Amino acid sequence: MKVCFIGCSGHYSYTFDILKSHTVAGIAPGTNGEDMRPLINDLKRMDISFKSYDHYAQMLDECRPDIAVINTWFGLSAPPVLAAVQRGIHVFTEKPVCTDMDNLLQIAGALKKTKTELCAMLGLRFDPWFLCMDRAVKDGAIGDIRLITGQKSYRMGSRPAFYSKRELFGGLIPWVAIHAIDWAYCVSGSRFQTVAACHSAKANHGCGDLEMTAACSFTMENDIIVSITADYLRPEKAPTHGDDRLRVAGTAGVIEAINGRVTLIDGQGSRELPLPEPGNVFTAFVQKLHGEKNNSISAYDSLYTTAVALKARDAADQKTLLDIHELDKLL
Amino acid sequence: MKVCFIGCSGHYSYTFDILKSHTVAGIAPGTNGEDMRPLINDLKRMDISFKSYDHYAQMLDECRPDIAVINTWFGLSAPPVLAAVQRGIHVFTEKPVCTDMDNLLQIAGALKKTKTELCAMLGLRFDPWFLCMDRAVKDGAIGDIRLITGQKSYRMGSRPAFYSKRELFGGLIPWVAIHAIDWAYCVSGSRFQTVAACHSAKANHGCGDLEMTAACSFTMENDIIVSITADYLRPEKAPTHGDDRLRVAGTAGVIEAINGRVTLIDGQGSRELPLPEPGNVFTAFVQKLHGEKNNSISAYDSLYTTAVALKARDAADQKTLLDIHELDKLL
Repeated sequence: MKVCFIGCSGHYSYTFDILKSHTVAGIAPGTNGEDMRPLINDLKRMDISFKSYDHYAQMLDECRPDIAVINTWFGLSAPPVLAAVQRGIHVFTEKPVCTDMDNLLQIAGALKKTKTELCAMLGLRFDPWFLCMDRAVKDGAIGDIRLITGQKSYRMGSRPAFYSKRELFGGLIPWVAIHAIDWAYCVSGSRFQTVAACHSAKANHGCGDLEMTAACSFTMENDIIVSITADYLRPEKAPTHGDDRLRVAGTAGVIEAINGRVTLIDGQGSRELPLPEPGNVFTAFVQKLHGEKNNSISAYDSLYTTAVALKARDAADQKTLLDIHELDKLL
Repeated sequence: MKVCFIGCSGHYSYTFDILKSHTVAGIAPGTNGEDMRPLINDLKRMDISFKSYDHYAQMLDECRPDIAVINTWFGLSAPPVLAAVQRGIHVFTEKPVCTDMDNLLQIAGALKKTKTELCAMLGLRFDPWFLCMDRAVKDGAIGDIRLITGQKSYRMGSRPAFYSKRELFGGLIPWVAIHAIDWAYCVSGSRFQTVAACHSAKANHGCGDLEMTAACSFTMENDIIVSITADYLRPEKAPTHGDDRLRVAGTAGVIEAINGRVTLIDGQGSRELPLPEPGNVFTAFVQKLHGEKNNSISAYDSLYTTAVALKARDAADQKTLLDIHELDKLL
């Protein structure tokens, strides 16, 4: 596959597992002022040659890549995503796919028209603990899902300046809580019906609009309840950068992941489940494009999870509960 | 102290720690059909003599107790609470204090008029893990509180028939989630501003109105976010009856209780905190009435926590976000 990179402000390193087996045709910033040095250094370290472009549109026209890897400032994803899709180039892009509904609908329309594939960097679906839980739940380990609780907690660390501006960053819910939204959607296979949410930028160390805390509560089809929190309050001295958690309670058991370990309590009692090998979201996408395997994240799922996260952010901004049961029909 | 019991459908056993040092003047059901045998058997086992009455009003008039211990069917608490308060008898009553706002306001008015004391059975405030967390947070261990996450998960077991009727039971949020609401209120000392919530009675084993799952998300003063879940999905084979959890994330650390153990992560890293001896909610109430100590739960707190829980239930019933920032002014 011929690959081009647009921006390097997100999780482009998902590609590294298999990048040596493919061709890097070019790299370009997604916006003026985006620092491309991290990617340049990574590619040099891997001894991968590439050509640098100033403008991604020119790069796409000249290189005609199979895949555009897009991770510019999160609020500015839509133009390069559209530019690639409209040229019939498959897109591996940062989540959220974009940060407003108008762009999302445009992207959805363009994907249908050009029959290109798109996959968002919802890479945590391939973590061993999530693969394990998802498999167990789908095998019926906990009966029917009734309540899903998710947590995303990160160290604040030092964040790039664009995180401080809502129009460039997008918000804590679309950037961080989206993973837990995606876990709930993936593990249940159910659509969201309503959302209420709140978020706060208080005590954010002078980082402008950046929210430090958020909570979302959803209902899904069949009265499944989903409760999610996200925060940047994990202390710097904590043993790990992130504290991802997921608990799924059903009619026949409760399964839960904390610290990357999965515990199931069911009719036989409580026990830890063995973990599979990790997967990789980019590898799965390339395998899908090659027609080899189909455990990749679909364009539909990428767009739907993005749409739900954007509506959750709206609910928090507007301090209201939103009916989102027809959201999937827009996509 | 002279004590009378009205009903025995709740946590009357909180009184047992010190009951032998006091006088049980009488017992009566709180409603026709309430089975008093559990209390009768307990008192006989403790070799405590008592007189049985058919009607609590008659009992209160004849016995003139210092304290009425009230725990009838939860939806029927208001009449005996009012009967006691209007007679100037102090009340130790099940939480929620009652299950509708009209009665709550009547009780609040009667308490002011008669200057009687009331304490709700929010006994988990006296669990070692909560005492530990509350002390650590108030000593500044985590800086300013930003996000509070609470979980109440119980085994369903076999529930009395009155749990199946909303008007007799009150609902999962007022009965179970109220504890986590109270933890958030107690540990933060802050008032609630908004609430959104959801609950579901699906898959409740034929138990009528009884909700099996609930989630509440609140904002408090100073943009503190509170996210709470409650469920009856804990498997019967789980190692304990309940799975109470509380996590409080602040500007300088995160403190958390799981399985009765408290972990603090702060600028020094992660460590488990030593636990104090447990307290007892009834003992604290009696000590307050004797003027000996004042770590009891106030009438105001009992009423406020009840009011917040009732508004959360309303928000879930109405599928809307409610502004509750003036709730305290009603009480």
